[in-house]
Amino acid sequence: MPLFFQENSKAPTITLSSDESKHLIRVLRQKTGDEVQVTDGEGNLFHCKISNPDPKKTELAVISTEVIEPDNFEIHLAISPTKSPDRMEWMVEKITEIGFSKLYLMKSQHSERSFLKTERLEKKVISACKQSKQYRKPSIESDWNFQDLIKSSDFEGFQKFIAYVDENHQNHLFDVALPGNKYLILIGPEGDFDPSEIEDAFEQGFAPVSLGKSRLRTETAGLAAVQMLQVVNR
Amino acid sequence: MPLFFQENSKAPTITLSSDESKHLIRVLRQKTGDEVQVTDGEGNLFHCKISNPDPKKTELAVISTEVIEPDNFEIHLAISPTKSPDRMEWMVEKITEIGFSKLYLMKSQHSERSFLKTERLEKKVISACKQSKQYRKPSIESDWNFQDLIKSSDFEGFQKFIAYVDENHQNHLFDVALPGNKYLILIGPEGDFDPSEIEDAFEQGFAPVSLGKSRLRTETAGLAAVQMLQVVNR
Repeated sequence: MPLFFQENSKAPTITLSSDESKHLIRVLRQKTGDEVQVTDGEGNLFHCKISNPDPKKTELAVISTEVIEPDNFEIHLAISPTKSPDRMEWMVEKITEIGFSKLYLMKSQHSERSFLKTERLEKKVISACKQSKQYRKPSIESDWNFQDLIKSSDFEGFQKFIAYVDENHQNHLFDVALPGNKYLILIGPEGDFDPSEIEDAFEQGFAPVSLGKSRLRTETAGLAAVQMLQVVNR
Repeated sequence: MPLFFQENSKAPTITLSSDESKHLIRVLRQKTGDEVQVTDGEGNLFHCKISNPDPKKTELAVISTEVIEPDNFEIHLAISPTKSPDRMEWMVEKITEIGFSKLYLMKSQHSERSFLKTERLEKKVISACKQSKQYRKPSIESDWNFQDLIKSSDFEGFQKFIAYVDENHQNHLFDVALPGNKYLILIGPEGDFDPSEIEDAFEQGFAPVSLGKSRLRTETAGLAAVQMLQVVNR
Protein backbone atom coordinates (compact mmCIF):
# COMPACT_ATOMS: atom_id res chain seq x y z
CA MET A 1 0.00 0.00 0.00
CA PRO A 2 1.40 3.45 -0.89
CA LEU A 3 2.66 5.68 1.91
CA PHE A 4 2.04 9.42 1.76
CA PHE A 5 3.57 12.25 3.69
CA GLN A 6 1.63 15.09 5.25
CA GLU A 7 2.96 17.32 8.01
CA ASN A 8 0.71 18.15 10.95
CA SER A 9 -1.76 15.37 10.19
CA LYS A 10 -4.44 14.64 12.78
CA ALA A 11 -7.48 12.37 12.95
CA PRO A 12 -10.33 12.36 11.94
CA THR A 13 -9.52 14.06 8.58
CA ILE A 14 -6.28 14.59 6.70
CA THR A 15 -6.00 16.90 3.70
CA LEU A 16 -3.08 16.05 1.43
CA SER A 17 -0.91 18.73 -0.17
CA SER A 18 -1.32 19.34 -3.89
CA ASP A 19 1.82 17.33 -4.77
CA GLU A 20 0.71 14.34 -2.73
CA SER A 21 -2.92 14.66 -3.94
CA LYS A 22 -1.83 14.73 -7.56
CA HIS A 23 0.35 11.66 -7.06
CA LEU A 24 -2.43 9.73 -5.36
CA ILE A 25 -5.26 10.65 -7.72
CA ARG A 26 -3.61 11.34 -11.10
CA VAL A 27 -0.62 8.99 -11.01
CA LEU A 28 -1.88 6.10 -8.89
CA ARG A 29 -5.52 6.68 -9.97
CA GLN A 30 -6.95 5.90 -6.54
CA LYS A 31 -10.62 6.48 -5.90
CA THR A 32 -13.11 7.15 -3.08
CA GLY A 33 -12.95 4.36 -0.53
CA ASP A 34 -9.42 3.17 -1.50
CA GLU A 35 -7.05 2.73 1.42
CA VAL A 36 -3.83 4.66 1.86
CA GLN A 37 -1.28 5.19 4.61
CA VAL A 38 -0.06 8.60 5.69
CA THR A 39 2.76 9.59 8.00
CA ASP A 40 3.34 13.01 9.52
CA GLY A 41 7.07 12.32 9.78
CA GLU A 42 6.82 12.53 13.56
CA GLY A 43 6.22 8.85 14.23
CA ASN A 44 2.49 8.70 13.52
CA LEU A 45 1.17 6.32 10.90
CA PHE A 46 -2.42 6.91 9.82
CA HIS A 47 -4.47 4.23 8.09
CA CYS A 48 -6.99 6.08 5.94
CA LYS A 49 -9.69 5.81 3.29
CA ILE A 50 -10.07 8.37 0.54
CA SER A 51 -13.19 10.42 1.23
CA ASN A 52 -12.74 13.12 -1.42
CA PRO A 53 -10.33 12.31 -4.29
CA ASP A 54 -9.53 15.90 -5.30
CA PRO A 55 -6.23 16.01 -7.29
CA LYS A 56 -5.42 19.36 -5.63
CA LYS A 57 -6.50 18.64 -2.06
CA THR A 58 -7.58 15.11 -1.44
CA GLU A 59 -9.38 14.45 1.82
CA LEU A 60 -8.80 11.26 3.76
CA ALA A 61 -10.82 9.77 6.62
CA VAL A 62 -8.55 8.34 9.31
CA ILE A 63 -9.54 4.78 10.26
CA SER A 64 -6.83 4.18 12.84
CA THR A 65 -3.60 5.72 14.10
CA GLU A 66 -0.46 3.85 15.00
CA VAL A 67 2.41 5.42 16.93
CA ILE A 68 5.79 4.12 15.79
CA GLU A 69 8.22 4.03 18.71
CA PRO A 70 11.47 5.94 18.16
CA ASP A 71 14.77 4.04 18.14
CA ASN A 72 16.75 4.06 21.38
CA PHE A 73 19.65 5.77 19.58
CA GLU A 74 20.13 8.90 17.49
CA ILE A 75 22.60 9.49 14.66
CA HIS A 76 23.58 13.11 14.10
CA LEU A 77 25.89 13.91 11.22
CA ALA A 78 27.71 17.22 10.69
CA ILE A 79 29.31 17.61 7.29
CA SER A 80 30.91 20.28 5.14
CA PRO A 81 28.94 20.36 1.88
CA THR A 82 30.69 19.13 -1.25
CA LYS A 83 31.21 21.40 -4.24
CA SER A 84 28.64 19.42 -6.21
CA PRO A 85 25.14 19.65 -4.68
CA ASP A 86 24.31 16.33 -6.40
CA ARG A 87 26.66 14.50 -4.09
CA MET A 88 24.92 15.91 -1.04
CA GLU A 89 21.53 15.05 -2.49
CA TRP A 90 22.33 11.43 -3.05
CA MET A 91 23.97 11.15 0.36
CA VAL A 92 20.84 12.56 1.97
CA GLU A 93 18.67 10.11 0.03
CA LYS A 94 20.81 7.16 1.08
CA ILE A 95 21.22 8.06 4.75
CA THR A 96 17.47 8.62 4.95
CA GLU A 97 16.87 5.11 3.59
CA ILE A 98 19.35 3.70 6.08
CA GLY A 99 18.13 5.89 8.94
CA PHE A 100 19.51 8.95 10.75
CA SER A 101 18.15 11.74 12.95
CA LYS A 102 19.70 15.03 12.00
CA LEU A 103 22.13 16.49 9.46
CA TYR A 104 24.05 19.72 10.05
CA LEU A 105 25.63 21.43 7.04
CA MET A 106 28.62 23.31 8.38
CA LYS A 107 31.26 25.67 7.12
CA SER A 108 34.79 24.74 8.07
CA GLN A 109 38.09 26.34 7.06
CA HIS A 110 38.60 24.31 3.89
CA SER A 111 34.94 24.04 2.93
CA GLU A 112 34.43 24.30 -0.79
CA ARG A 113 30.96 25.62 -0.34
CA SER A 114 29.63 27.60 2.58
CA PHE A 115 25.98 27.43 1.74
CA LEU A 116 23.62 24.91 0.23
CA LYS A 117 19.91 25.34 -0.35
CA THR A 118 18.05 22.78 1.68
CA GLU A 119 14.78 22.70 -0.31
CA ARG A 120 16.00 20.00 -2.68
CA LEU A 121 17.54 18.05 0.17
CA GLU A 122 14.21 18.21 2.03
CA LYS A 123 12.44 16.76 -1.00
CA LYS A 124 14.97 13.91 -1.17
CA VAL A 125 14.39 13.22 2.53
CA ILE A 126 10.62 13.05 2.12
CA SER A 127 10.69 10.81 -0.94
CA ALA A 128 13.25 8.49 0.67
CA CYS A 129 11.10 8.32 3.85
CA LYS A 130 8.12 7.26 1.75
CA GLN A 131 10.21 4.79 -0.23
CA SER A 132 11.79 3.11 2.75
CA LYS A 133 8.86 3.46 5.19
CA GLN A 134 10.51 5.77 7.68
CA TYR A 135 7.87 7.35 9.91
CA ARG A 136 10.15 9.89 11.55
CA LYS A 137 11.49 12.48 9.16
CA PRO A 138 15.15 13.33 9.73
CA SER A 139 15.84 17.06 9.88
CA ILE A 140 18.47 19.19 8.18
CA GLU A 141 20.02 22.35 9.53
CA SER A 142 22.05 24.60 7.30
CA ASP A 143 24.33 27.50 8.15
CA TRP A 144 26.31 26.11 11.06
CA ASN A 145 29.94 26.92 11.39
CA PHE A 146 32.44 24.43 12.71
CA GLN A 147 33.45 26.37 15.83
CA ASP A 148 29.87 27.01 16.97
CA LEU A 149 28.92 23.41 16.34
CA ILE A 150 31.75 21.82 18.33
CA LYS A 151 31.03 24.15 21.27
CA SER A 152 27.24 23.82 21.14
CA SER A 153 25.52 22.60 24.28
CA ASP A 154 22.99 20.76 22.09
CA PHE A 155 25.23 17.72 22.17
CA GLU A 156 25.64 17.16 25.89
CA GLY A 157 25.50 13.45 26.65
CA PHE A 158 26.36 12.53 23.05
CA GLN A 159 29.24 10.32 21.95
CA LYS A 160 31.16 12.81 19.81
CA PHE A 161 33.45 11.75 16.97
CA ILE A 162 35.57 13.43 14.33
CA ALA A 163 36.52 11.53 11.17
CA TYR A 164 39.37 12.79 9.04
CA VAL A 165 42.00 11.48 6.68
CA ASP A 166 44.85 10.09 8.74
CA GLU A 167 46.16 6.61 8.28
CA ASN A 168 47.56 6.59 11.82
CA HIS A 169 44.51 6.81 14.01
CA GLN A 170 43.39 3.36 14.89
CA ASN A 171 39.98 3.67 16.50
CA HIS A 172 37.43 2.32 14.10
CA LEU A 173 34.07 4.03 14.58
CA PHE A 174 32.44 0.63 14.74
CA ASP A 175 34.53 -0.36 17.77
CA VAL A 176 34.18 2.81 19.83
CA ALA A 177 30.48 3.57 19.30
CA LEU A 178 28.39 2.01 22.06
CA PRO A 179 24.85 0.79 21.28
CA GLY A 180 21.89 2.82 22.48
CA ASN A 181 23.63 6.19 22.47
CA LYS A 182 23.23 9.53 20.79
CA TYR A 183 26.09 10.13 18.37
CA LEU A 184 27.44 13.23 16.68
CA ILE A 185 29.98 12.59 13.98
CA LEU A 186 31.87 15.30 12.11
CA ILE A 187 32.93 14.65 8.52
CA GLY A 188 35.44 17.00 6.89
CA PRO A 189 35.29 18.73 3.51
CA GLU A 190 37.14 17.46 0.44
CA GLY A 191 40.19 19.45 1.60
CA ASP A 192 39.78 17.86 5.05
CA PHE A 193 39.65 19.67 8.39
CA ASP A 194 42.45 22.05 9.28
CA PRO A 195 44.81 20.62 11.95
CA SER A 196 43.80 23.51 14.23
CA GLU A 197 40.14 22.50 13.87
CA ILE A 198 40.98 18.91 14.77
CA GLU A 199 42.80 20.16 17.90
CA ASP A 200 39.81 22.33 18.82
CA ALA A 201 37.48 19.37 18.43
CA PHE A 202 39.67 17.25 20.71
CA GLU A 203 39.44 19.99 23.36
CA GLN A 204 35.66 19.83 23.10
CA GLY A 205 35.67 16.09 23.76
CA PHE A 206 35.50 14.73 20.22
CA ALA A 207 37.30 11.41 19.69
CA PRO A 208 39.17 10.74 16.43
CA VAL A 209 37.76 7.82 14.50
CA SER A 210 38.58 5.88 11.36
CA LEU A 211 35.90 4.70 8.93
CA GLY A 212 38.15 1.97 7.49
CA LYS A 213 41.23 1.56 5.36
CA SER A 214 39.88 3.38 2.30
CA ARG A 215 40.12 7.06 1.51
CA LEU A 216 36.48 7.94 1.12
CA ARG A 217 34.99 11.00 -0.52
CA THR A 218 33.13 13.30 1.86
CA GLU A 219 29.67 12.05 0.94
CA THR A 220 30.75 8.40 1.02
CA ALA A 221 32.23 8.96 4.48
CA GLY A 222 28.93 10.41 5.70
CA LEU A 223 27.05 7.42 4.41
CA ALA A 224 29.57 4.91 5.78
CA ALA A 225 29.36 6.49 9.24
CA VAL A 226 25.56 6.31 9.34
CA GLN A 227 25.58 2.73 8.09
CA MET A 228 28.13 1.64 10.73
CA LEU A 229 26.19 3.25 13.57
CA GLN A 230 23.07 1.44 12.37
CA VAL A 231 24.97 -1.86 12.43
CA VAL A 232 26.22 -1.08 15.96
CA ASN A 233 22.53 -0.80 16.92
CA ARG A 234 21.27 -3.76 14.86
CA MET B 1 50.83 13.06 -5.37
CA PRO B 2 48.40 12.23 -8.18
CA LEU B 3 47.73 8.58 -8.98
CA PHE B 4 47.28 7.50 -12.58
CA PHE B 5 45.89 4.33 -14.05
CA GLN B 6 47.47 2.39 -16.86
CA GLU B 7 46.71 -1.24 -17.64
CA ASN B 8 49.60 -3.60 -18.44
CA SER B 9 52.24 -1.25 -17.03
CA LYS B 10 55.78 -2.60 -16.67
CA ALA B 11 59.14 -1.13 -15.69
CA PRO B 12 61.29 0.53 -16.97
CA THR B 13 58.94 2.68 -19.11
CA ILE B 14 55.21 3.33 -18.89
CA THR B 15 53.27 5.07 -21.66
CA LEU B 16 50.05 6.65 -20.44
CA SER B 17 46.83 6.51 -22.49
CA SER B 18 45.69 9.72 -24.17
CA ASP B 19 43.07 10.43 -21.46
CA GLU B 20 45.58 10.01 -18.66
CA SER B 21 48.29 11.90 -20.57
CA LYS B 22 45.97 14.83 -21.20
CA HIS B 23 44.97 14.96 -17.54
CA LEU B 24 48.58 14.87 -16.37
CA ILE B 25 50.01 17.39 -18.85
CA ARG B 26 47.12 19.72 -19.75
CA VAL B 27 45.07 19.73 -16.55
CA LEU B 28 47.71 19.24 -13.84
CA ARG B 29 50.42 20.93 -15.96
CA GLN B 30 53.16 18.52 -14.87
CA LYS B 31 56.54 18.69 -16.58
CA THR B 32 59.62 16.58 -17.35
CA GLY B 33 61.13 15.28 -14.10
CA ASP B 34 57.92 15.68 -12.03
CA GLU B 35 56.99 12.63 -10.00
CA VAL B 36 53.78 10.69 -10.43
CA GLN B 37 52.38 7.37 -9.26
CA VAL B 38 50.80 4.83 -11.58
CA THR B 39 48.86 1.68 -10.82
CA ASP B 40 48.03 -1.08 -13.25
CA GLY B 41 44.96 -2.04 -11.22
CA GLU B 42 46.51 -5.42 -10.49
CA GLY B 43 48.24 -4.51 -7.25
CA ASN B 44 51.36 -2.85 -8.66
CA LEU B 45 52.18 0.72 -7.69
CA PHE B 46 54.86 2.39 -9.83
CA HIS B 47 56.73 5.46 -8.63
CA CYS B 48 57.72 7.33 -11.77
CA LYS B 49 59.25 10.49 -13.21
CA ILE B 50 57.92 12.11 -16.35
CA SER B 51 60.45 11.54 -19.15
CA ASN B 52 58.39 12.78 -22.10
CA PRO B 53 55.39 15.02 -21.25
CA ASP B 54 53.37 14.39 -24.42
CA PRO B 55 49.67 15.25 -23.86
CA LYS B 56 48.72 12.33 -26.11
CA LYS B 57 51.16 9.67 -24.94
CA THR B 58 53.27 10.73 -22.00
CA GLU B 59 56.23 8.53 -21.19
CA LEU B 60 57.24 7.84 -17.62
CA ALA B 61 60.46 6.36 -16.26
CA VAL B 62 59.79 3.90 -13.45
CA ILE B 63 61.94 4.64 -10.37
CA SER B 64 60.60 1.87 -8.17
CA THR B 65 57.79 -0.67 -8.06
CA GLU B 66 55.78 -1.59 -5.00
CA VAL B 67 53.52 -4.64 -4.85
CA ILE B 68 50.41 -4.03 -2.76
CA GLU B 69 49.32 -7.21 -1.01
CA PRO B 70 45.74 -8.26 -1.65
CA ASP B 71 43.26 -8.38 1.23
CA ASN B 72 42.66 -11.79 2.82
CA PHE B 73 38.97 -11.56 1.88
CA GLU B 74 36.97 -10.99 -1.30
CA ILE B 75 33.59 -9.33 -1.68
CA HIS B 76 31.58 -10.46 -4.72
CA LEU B 77 28.24 -8.79 -5.35
CA ALA B 78 25.59 -10.02 -7.78
CA ILE B 79 22.81 -7.56 -8.45
CA SER B 80 19.90 -7.07 -10.82
CA PRO B 81 20.45 -3.69 -12.49
CA THR B 82 18.04 -0.88 -11.60
CA LYS B 83 15.89 0.80 -14.24
CA SER B 84 17.98 3.95 -13.95
CA PRO B 85 21.61 3.40 -15.03
CA ASP B 86 22.58 6.40 -12.84
CA ARG B 87 21.78 4.43 -9.73
CA MET B 88 24.08 1.62 -10.80
CA GLU B 89 26.82 4.11 -11.66
CA TRP B 90 26.83 5.76 -8.29
CA MET B 91 26.70 2.43 -6.53
CA VAL B 92 29.72 1.26 -8.49
CA GLU B 93 31.58 4.47 -7.63
CA LYS B 94 30.80 4.08 -3.94
CA ILE B 95 31.55 0.38 -3.59
CA THR B 96 34.83 0.95 -5.42
CA GLU B 97 35.78 3.63 -2.89
CA ILE B 98 34.83 1.31 -0.04
CA GLY B 99 36.41 -1.74 -1.67
CA PHE B 100 35.07 -4.85 -3.39
CA SER B 101 36.37 -7.51 -5.80
CA LYS B 102 33.79 -8.30 -8.42
CA LEU B 103 30.32 -7.23 -9.51
CA TYR B 104 27.98 -9.46 -11.52
CA LEU B 105 25.02 -7.84 -13.27
CA MET B 106 22.35 -10.49 -13.49
CA LYS B 107 18.93 -10.95 -14.96
CA SER B 108 16.37 -12.36 -12.58
CA GLN B 109 12.64 -12.93 -13.08
CA HIS B 110 11.53 -9.48 -11.94
CA SER B 111 14.51 -7.55 -13.30
CA GLU B 112 13.51 -4.23 -14.72
CA ARG B 113 16.44 -4.22 -17.05
CA SER B 114 18.17 -7.21 -18.51
CA PHE B 115 21.19 -5.47 -19.91
CA LEU B 116 23.41 -2.58 -18.93
CA LYS B 117 26.41 -1.27 -20.84
CA THR B 118 29.47 -1.60 -18.68
CA GLU B 119 31.69 1.04 -20.36
CA ARG B 120 30.43 3.84 -18.15
CA LEU B 121 30.61 1.63 -15.08
CA GLU B 122 34.23 0.78 -15.95
CA LYS B 123 35.06 4.49 -16.12
CA LYS B 124 33.48 5.05 -12.71
CA VAL B 125 35.53 2.18 -11.30
CA ILE B 126 38.80 3.58 -12.63
CA SER B 127 38.18 7.11 -11.44
CA ALA B 128 37.08 5.89 -8.00
CA CYS B 129 40.20 3.68 -7.79
CA LYS B 130 42.38 6.72 -8.48
CA GLN B 131 40.40 8.86 -6.05
CA SER B 132 40.51 6.42 -3.17
CA LYS B 133 43.93 4.87 -3.89
CA GLN B 134 42.79 1.37 -4.69
CA TYR B 135 45.56 -0.51 -6.47
CA ARG B 136 43.48 -3.51 -7.46
CA LYS B 137 40.73 -2.70 -9.92
CA PRO B 138 37.46 -4.48 -9.17
CA SER B 139 35.94 -6.18 -12.20
CA ILE B 140 32.43 -6.16 -13.59
CA GLU B 141 30.72 -8.95 -15.49
CA SER B 142 27.51 -8.35 -17.33
CA ASP B 143 25.03 -10.78 -18.85
CA TRP B 144 24.68 -13.37 -16.10
CA ASN B 145 21.35 -14.88 -15.39
CA PHE B 146 20.24 -15.78 -11.90
CA GLN B 147 19.99 -19.53 -12.44
CA ASP B 148 23.45 -19.85 -14.00
CA LEU B 149 24.98 -17.71 -11.32
CA ILE B 150 23.59 -19.61 -8.33
CA LYS B 151 24.70 -22.89 -9.88
CA SER B 152 28.14 -21.69 -11.00
CA SER B 153 31.15 -23.59 -9.71
CA ASP B 154 33.09 -20.29 -9.60
CA PHE B 155 31.88 -19.80 -6.05
CA GLU B 156 33.03 -23.00 -4.40
CA GLY B 157 34.37 -22.28 -0.93
CA PHE B 158 32.52 -18.93 -0.76
CA GLN B 159 30.10 -17.86 1.96
CA LYS B 160 26.97 -17.39 -0.14
CA PHE B 161 24.15 -15.06 0.89
CA ILE B 162 20.86 -13.88 -0.55
CA ALA B 163 19.33 -10.59 0.65
CA TYR B 164 15.69 -9.91 -0.04
CA VAL B 165 12.79 -8.00 1.46
CA ASP B 166 11.36 -10.05 4.29
CA GLU B 167 10.91 -8.69 7.75
CA ASN B 168 10.97 -12.17 9.24
CA HIS B 169 14.44 -13.43 8.52
CA GLN B 170 16.66 -12.64 11.42
CA ASN B 171 20.23 -13.27 10.35
CA HIS B 172 21.97 -9.97 9.98
CA LEU B 173 24.70 -10.17 7.34
CA PHE B 174 27.10 -8.61 9.83
CA ASP B 175 26.59 -11.47 12.29
CA VAL B 176 26.84 -14.41 9.89
CA ALA B 177 29.76 -13.27 7.71
CA LEU B 178 33.04 -14.62 9.07
CA PRO B 179 36.24 -12.55 8.68
CA GLY B 180 38.80 -13.61 6.09
CA ASN B 181 36.38 -15.32 3.72
CA LYS B 182 35.25 -14.98 0.15
CA TYR B 183 31.66 -13.78 0.02
CA LEU B 184 29.04 -13.79 -2.70
CA ILE B 185 25.94 -11.80 -1.93
CA LEU B 186 22.87 -11.65 -4.17
CA ILE B 187 20.77 -8.48 -4.17
CA GLY B 188 17.35 -8.56 -5.79
CA PRO B 189 15.80 -6.15 -8.29
CA GLU B 190 13.32 -3.43 -7.31
CA GLY B 191 10.51 -6.00 -7.65
CA ASP B 192 12.56 -8.38 -5.45
CA PHE B 193 13.44 -12.00 -6.20
CA ASP B 194 10.66 -14.40 -7.05
CA PRO B 195 9.88 -16.84 -4.20
CA SER B 196 10.89 -19.71 -6.52
CA GLU B 197 14.29 -18.06 -7.06
CA ILE B 198 14.78 -17.73 -3.32
CA GLU B 199 14.00 -21.45 -2.92
CA ASP B 200 16.45 -22.31 -5.71
CA ALA B 201 19.16 -20.23 -4.03
CA PHE B 202 18.56 -22.05 -0.72
CA GLU B 203 19.04 -25.36 -2.53
CA GLN B 204 22.37 -24.11 -3.85
CA GLY B 205 23.55 -23.30 -0.33
CA PHE B 206 22.75 -19.59 -0.13
CA ALA B 207 21.81 -18.34 3.34
CA PRO B 208 19.11 -15.66 3.73
CA VAL B 209 20.40 -12.46 5.32
CA SER B 210 19.01 -9.16 6.49
CA LEU B 211 20.82 -5.86 5.90
CA GLY B 212 18.99 -4.14 8.75
CA LYS B 213 15.57 -2.87 9.67
CA SER B 214 15.17 -0.48 6.73
CA ARG B 215 13.71 -1.21 3.34
CA LEU B 216 16.59 -0.26 1.11
CA ARG B 217 16.54 0.43 -2.60
CA THR B 218 18.49 -2.09 -4.69
CA GLU B 219 21.57 0.10 -5.10
CA THR B 220 21.58 1.11 -1.42
CA ALA B 221 21.37 -2.55 -0.43
CA GLY B 222 24.42 -3.32 -2.60
CA LEU B 223 26.38 -0.57 -0.97
CA ALA B 224 25.26 -1.50 2.55
CA ALA B 225 26.32 -5.12 2.00
CA VAL B 226 29.80 -4.16 0.79
CA GLN B 227 30.24 -1.72 3.66
CA MET B 228 29.20 -4.31 6.26
CA LEU B 229 31.57 -6.95 4.88
CA GLN B 230 34.39 -4.40 5.02
CA VAL B 231 33.56 -3.71 8.68
CA VAL B 232 33.54 -7.47 9.40
CA ASN B 233 37.12 -7.47 8.05
CA ARG B 234 38.26 -4.21 9.68
